[in-house]
Amino acid sequence: MIRALYRTQDGVFQADLPPEKFAQALKDERGLLWVDFVDTPPDMDAPILLDTFGFHPLAVDDALQETHVPKVDDWYQYVYIVLLAVEFDSPAVDLKALELDVFLGRNYIVTHHDRPISAVERVWWSCLRNERHTQGGADHLLYALVDELVAQFMPVVEKIDVAIDLIEDQIFGRPDSATLAQIFKLKRVVLDLRRVISPMREVLNRLARDDYPMIDARDRVYFRDVYDHLVRLHDINESLRDLIGGSLDTYLSVINNNMNDVMKRLTAITTLFMPISFLAGFFGMNFFQPAIPLDIWTGLPAFVITLLVMIAAPTLAFWWMRRSRWV
Amino acid sequence: MIRALYRTQDGVFQADLPPEKFAQALKDERGLLWVDFVDTPPDMDAPILLDTFGFHPLAVDDALQETHVPKVDDWYQYVYIVLLAVEFDSPAVDLKALELDVFLGRNYIVTHHDRPISAVERVWWSCLRNERHTQGGADHLLYALVDELVAQFMPVVEKIDVAIDLIEDQIFGRPDSATLAQIFKLKRVVLDLRRVISPMREVLNRLARDDYPMIDARDRVYFRDVYDHLVRLHDINESLRDLIGGSLDTYLSVINNNMNDVMKRLTAITTLFMPISFLAGFFGMNFFQPAIPLDIWTGLPAFVITLLVMIAAPTLAFWWMRRSRWV
Amino acid sequence: MIRALYRTQDGVFQADLPPEKFAQALKDERGLLWVDFVDTPPDMDAPILLDTFGFHPLAVDDALQETHVPKVDDWYQYVYIVLLAVEFDSPAVDLKALELDVFLGRNYIVTHHDRPISAVERVWWSCLRNERHTQGGADHLLYALVDELVAQFMPVVEKIDVAIDLIEDQIFGRPDSATLAQIFKLKRVVLDLRRVISPMREVLNRLARDDYPMIDARDRVYFRDVYDHLVRLHDINESLRDLIGGSLDTYLSVINNNMNDVMKRLTAITTLFMPISFLAGFFGMNFFQPAIPLDIWTGLPAFVITLLVMIAAPTLAFWWMRRSRWV
Amino acid sequence: MIRALYRTQDGVFQADLPPEKFAQALKDERGLLWVDFVDTPPDMDAPILLDTFGFHPLAVDDALQETHVPKVDDWYQYVYIVLLAVEFDSPAVDLKALELDVFLGRNYIVTHHDRPISAVERVWWSCLRNERHTQGGADHLLYALVDELVAQFMPVVEKIDVAIDLIEDQIFGRPDSATLAQIFKLKRVVLDLRRVISPMREVLNRLARDDYPMIDARDRVYFRDVYDHLVRLHDINESLRDLIGGSLDTYLSVINNNMNDVMKRLTAITTLFMPISFLAGFFGMNFFQPAIPLDIWTGLPAFVITLLVMIAAPTLAFWWMRRSRWV
Amino acid sequence: MIRALYRTQDGVFQADLPPEKFAQALKDERGLLWVDFVDTPPDMDAPILLDTFGFHPLAVDDALQETHVPKVDDWYQYVYIVLLAVEFDSPAVDLKALELDVFLGRNYIVTHHDRPISAVERVWWSCLRNERHTQGGADHLLYALVDELVAQFMPVVEKIDVAIDLIEDQIFGRPDSATLAQIFKLKRVVLDLRRVISPMREVLNRLARDDYPMIDARDRVYFRDVYDHLVRLHDINESLRDLIGGSLDTYLSVINNNMNDVMKRLTAITTLFMPISFLAGFFGMNFFQPAIPLDIWTGLPAFVITLLVMIAAPTLAFWWMRRSRWV
Repeated sequence: MIRALYRTQDGVFQADLPPEKFAQALKDERGLLWVDFVDTPPDMDAPILLDTFGFHPLAVDDALQETHVPKVDDWYQYVYIVLLAVEFDSPAVDLKALELDVFLGRNYIVTHHDRPISAVERVWWSCLRNERHTQGGADHLLYALVDELVAQFMPVVEKIDVAIDLIEDQIFGRPDSATLAQIFKLKRVVLDLRRVISPMREVLNRLARDDYPMIDARDRVYFRDVYDHLVRLHDINESLRDLIGGSLDTYLSVINNNMNDVMKRLTAITTLFMPISFLAGFFGMNFFQPAIPLDIWTGLPAFVITLLVMIAAPTLAFWWMRRSRWV
Repeated sequence: MIRALYRTQDGVFQADLPPEKFAQALKDERGLLWVDFVDTPPDMDAPILLDTFGFHPLAVDDALQETHVPKVDDWYQYVYIVLLAVEFDSPAVDLKALELDVFLGRNYIVTHHDRPISAVERVWWSCLRNERHTQGGADHLLYALVDELVAQFMPVVEKIDVAIDLIEDQIFGRPDSATLAQIFKLKRVVLDLRRVISPMREVLNRLARDDYPMIDARDRVYFRDVYDHLVRLHDINESLRDLIGGSLDTYLSVINNNMNDVMKRLTAITTLFMPISFLAGFFGMNFFQPAIPLDIWTGLPAFVITLLVMIAAPTLAFWWMRRSRWV
Repeated sequence: MIRALYRTQDGVFQADLPPEKFAQALKDERGLLWVDFVDTPPDMDAPILLDTFGFHPLAVDDALQETHVPKVDDWYQYVYIVLLAVEFDSPAVDLKALELDVFLGRNYIVTHHDRPISAVERVWWSCLRNERHTQGGADHLLYALVDELVAQFMPVVEKIDVAIDLIEDQIFGRPDSATLAQIFKLKRVVLDLRRVISPMREVLNRLARDDYPMIDARDRVYFRDVYDHLVRLHDINESLRDLIGGSLDTYLSVINNNMNDVMKRLTAITTLFMPISFLAGFFGMNFFQPAIPLDIWTGLPAFVITLLVMIAAPTLAFWWMRRSRWV
Repeated sequence: MIRALYRTQDGVFQADLPPEKFAQALKDERGLLWVDFVDTPPDMDAPILLDTFGFHPLAVDDALQETHVPKVDDWYQYVYIVLLAVEFDSPAVDLKALELDVFLGRNYIVTHHDRPISAVERVWWSCLRNERHTQGGADHLLYALVDELVAQFMPVVEKIDVAIDLIEDQIFGRPDSATLAQIFKLKRVVLDLRRVISPMREVLNRLARDDYPMIDARDRVYFRDVYDHLVRLHDINESLRDLIGGSLDTYLSVINNNMNDVMKRLTAITTLFMPISFLAGFFGMNFFQPAIPLDIWTGLPAFVITLLVMIAAPTLAFWWMRRSRWV
Repeated sequence: MIRALYRTQDGVFQADLPPEKFAQALKDERGLLWVDFVDTPPDMDAPILLDTFGFHPLAVDDALQETHVPKVDDWYQYVYIVLLAVEFDSPAVDLKALELDVFLGRNYIVTHHDRPISAVERVWWSCLRNERHTQGGADHLLYALVDELVAQFMPVVEKIDVAIDLIEDQIFGRPDSATLAQIFKLKRVVLDLRRVISPMREVLNRLARDDYPMIDARDRVYFRDVYDHLVRLHDINESLRDLIGGSLDTYLSVINNNMNDVMKRLTAITTLFMPISFLAGFFGMNFFQPAIPLDIWTGLPAFVITLLVMIAAPTLAFWWMRRSRWV
């Protein structure tokens, strides 16, 4: 799907400019054209990007392929920017990164993405609802897009934080193999997030610091603000990484601790009963005659009591082990 | 709550300047105005910050939101500084970081915080008690604030140090699961502290090194002094981090060591008794006749002695294991 | 084998130039000569490289020996470049790096390799099929070679990714010693790949950034494109390294977890049966007379049932353990 | 204690200059004054430092408090240097760092320390014994002090090296919990030493590289020599850190190895005896009649032999286990 | 031993110049003097170095003491270089580093070492055999020395590589405590080698890059070649370090794996036999009368079969365990 927003230099607003009129709109140096390509086939978008806008074939190639590394390429007449949006599937503990390619010129912004991105939708509809959002120029539109993209990172980070707290409770409570799998899933998400935030931060740093003709020098402070936001996100994410690394260590230590306790009890039991079992066996040997009168030891009441003890002992032991969470 | 201190260029001191008079006070270029916002609602402080002081909306946004990353933003007419105070809850082993936002101009300092910070209180009341503290100008007030904030870090670091020593004693004494939980709590506190100290150090480095019109070049040496203090705190904190990392390793090694000892004893017991228990069972088989006369072995005294041994053996073993801290 | 392609400045194309004519071809400053040495003996290639082309002895030495470290040496009249191709033996999980030495001059490119490299073959035959590929000059031929070489890295990285996914399934399924060996093989491949990609990236960075007289300034953007590709590959490879490191940790944790479970069951069994076995032994002693009448307990039916239980109990236990994957 | 050495420009040497004459001595621009404060109360040394020498209050504060971080502060008229001496308590495996504060001016050097430092004593007495040592000027005295301080590091490093070798022998011999405690003590000493050497190196680097008016440019080569010495010490210390880290790994591996052996033997014993013990029990059941004549198996000689075996078997097993270092 | 080679500016070659003639030879600005000090007492070499050559006392001190850190000190009239040769004792897995101190002037080179170094011998004898080697000047001699020194590193690295392969085979075959000791020895050698290669690389980098009057600018390319060689060696050594680190991890994992298997079997055996042993004991109690006729179970043939089973069972179990490498 190709869709376009166009505001002429006279402030006339046009919501659905057909592709044939892009070339004309570009000639209007004080106008603003936003073209959004959503999941378009290459034979449909490539000609527009190459011929109408005159982008370099290498930049267009990068845009059409999903490369997933945020970067800024300065092509002098325009800037080519790769951004990433994130979607977090909370139950599956899975992070998806969606690529957004942006070409920014003086009087136009071209966005290209294979899957719908909610941040782009929000900015698009806010422009439609209120023309004021397009008055800041192309660089302000880029700022709005970047700001919306980055705003979606915080809830992801917060969900991961909550998940880590749950994990910690499980570890000191009743750790099992599922806890372990959960830890490793979270670890992967945090690593994935890092690979999104870290180059995004570099992109924003360049937009805030470098001198691009299509970004007003006074507007750089907005990109610096988003940059600061990303620095903070990166720090939080690093701290989450530390916490997950710590969780794994805790897990292993708790397991080791438990095993130590189990071994102690096994050794205690064995040490208590093995010697006296041997003694019992010793006097059970046929060297001895059943010579001495010990009627009370071998009467019916003793038998019944013994049976009861034999039923009660393992039952109590089992109950005790359940309570102590051994079995 | 909004409160303000004002010293005119003529040295007249006014303790409770109402917000309406801020604009006039700002015109007095050699005066000194300190406005402190404590937990004010946004609709109350935002207008003052934006209109009366004329701060940039992005800076005001940063101040009103709690962002928790110390930084210095140079807005040419003023500097926006984010600082952090710490509060350590010793029994719960929990570190709280409190944000303090500062706007520093030539003749004013504006502080904004959501929760009361003891360091701010102390500087405020020392100004009230003794006007001399306001004679150094706005940059001296900033120095006083920063110095008080940083002075509160050392007791925290010392408490952590004491806690680590206790932990080490426990590990080589009687390590258990609570020791482990304590180690991980301390680890988190040290990581948290690091994320406070490290950017604070960078902030002080910039205040001591960079050229800001509102900071007298001769006063930079004071900020360098606080910077040196923070470098030292950072080093101590890193060493605490090493020690805690080492504590966890020690814990695991001691546990492993213990388990090894337990296993050796279990194996020893089993090796001693299993063969002779088998022999006892062998001669207990009914292939043999109770043919030979061995009356002394099967008499009443032997029975009594056997009973006593059967009671004494596990009792002694249990007492020995207690003494050796097995069970 | 020595083979040569030659296009004169007039566009005349000659596919198999004999070595004797190299010197003459080099005088044609607007022509293009590509000489490819494949597994030639030193006494055959060294004279051509040293005398005909006039390369420095140190550079020729580097080319004739296999050194396996990508680099760029600027010899002013020409550039000496070491590149690496990779071949991945998927079943054996083994990565082979093949060295390709390139001398790039204004009107010639000399490639030297000991083993056939498929990327070189592809570029060679595309030049033969279509003379258009030689019209871009020597630097475009270098770009074509580099692009083909780097294009072969991605399938390797993808195969490793698939292998890691399989490993993770095995770990949470049924981990054994072969899983471990596989993890370590993958680890080594990823380390090897890193040692190829990392310096290759540096080579491309220099080709894209530095000013060489034999590389047209407008063509540097192509090398930057390959450089971006390598940056991405490096990032993916680093993430694979993290995942493999995580796999080893998972493996150890799962094994530890399993051992803990096994120990718990051993302890449970021992705790349940040792006390009652002792009791049985106690009453088996010859102190007691078979005095009381308990005929029903010692009749034939009881014997048969006991036998059946003795056969059934271990059979069921074994079946249960099989199902639980203990044995 | 305050003590002072004074050499006038005419070479007249005075060993015990009273504090009242310091001011006059300082006016002698080609003389040399060394004032040494040893454990003086603040109300005694502060006035001299602040008023007589005119040092900045911040520098004097740093000197009077023990801060333990080597650094160089350039106060233009003088340099304030914090140095560290070390004392190693070999039996307790404990490293003490002693702070030495130095103020270096053109014609004076002021040293301040809370505890006696042997390096300072040695330089002091060599000056007293031989006036030649004071002829090099204040910077040469500083060099002599620094050189002596650093010379004391090497024996410490060597003692640690010897201790590590002992540890390694213990690990492959008979590792126990004390070995572990020793490893962690050594680890802490090496970390402490690193925190001394690393900033000391930086101090010497600055003294050797930067341009201070009170250090003759030709004398910088001496500080560079001490700097090289510290670089080497740092390298050796890092290698010791690696070795100790390796020792801990070895310890854990050896323990794990031992535990594995123990487990194998436990399993071997259990596997050998459990089945036949069951068989013995099986035929000990009262289903069977003592029907068949097997007199030779149940005679007195068999009983005696059995008794002897029952005594000999565990004795030999115990002796064997002792020899194999199990118990 | 002091020995000297001297080539006059007229190309006259003198093999054994006595020390008395050094001063005169040095005046010959286009000649070349090589003096080699091998294990000379300080009172013999110090005067020559200090007086005849006029080296700085600090440089001479460094040369006479063994400091073992490669470095380059520029003394303007000459360069002082510390180099390291290595000797690898393959059976003992021990690396020895031999220090070679070099003073390089325009028309002389002075080498000083405490132990004979084979690389120096080789260069010395090649100079004696063929005067051509001395025609390149002092810097070429230095190149020849450095090249020979570095050429000896590769066989060491290759031996370590072979040793690591052997280790890996042992680990997946039959790991024991000796394997562990071998891993740690190799780890130490690789660390030692790193501490040789890394500063050597830096020395060569400086010789190849910096501007020294006694090194012809055109000859720097030779030092760059050795530098590239050292970069490669460093990379290979780092990869060996990774492999050894991986070996230790493998070792621990394999041991853990084995222990897990052993525990499973112990638990299996215990689970199979403990219940039925209890049953046997139960019916062995004297509550029961040997009342029912079961003659066939208690006859002589049954006894013989039982005896055979009792001998066969542990024998077979032991054989099986041997085959499975348990004992």
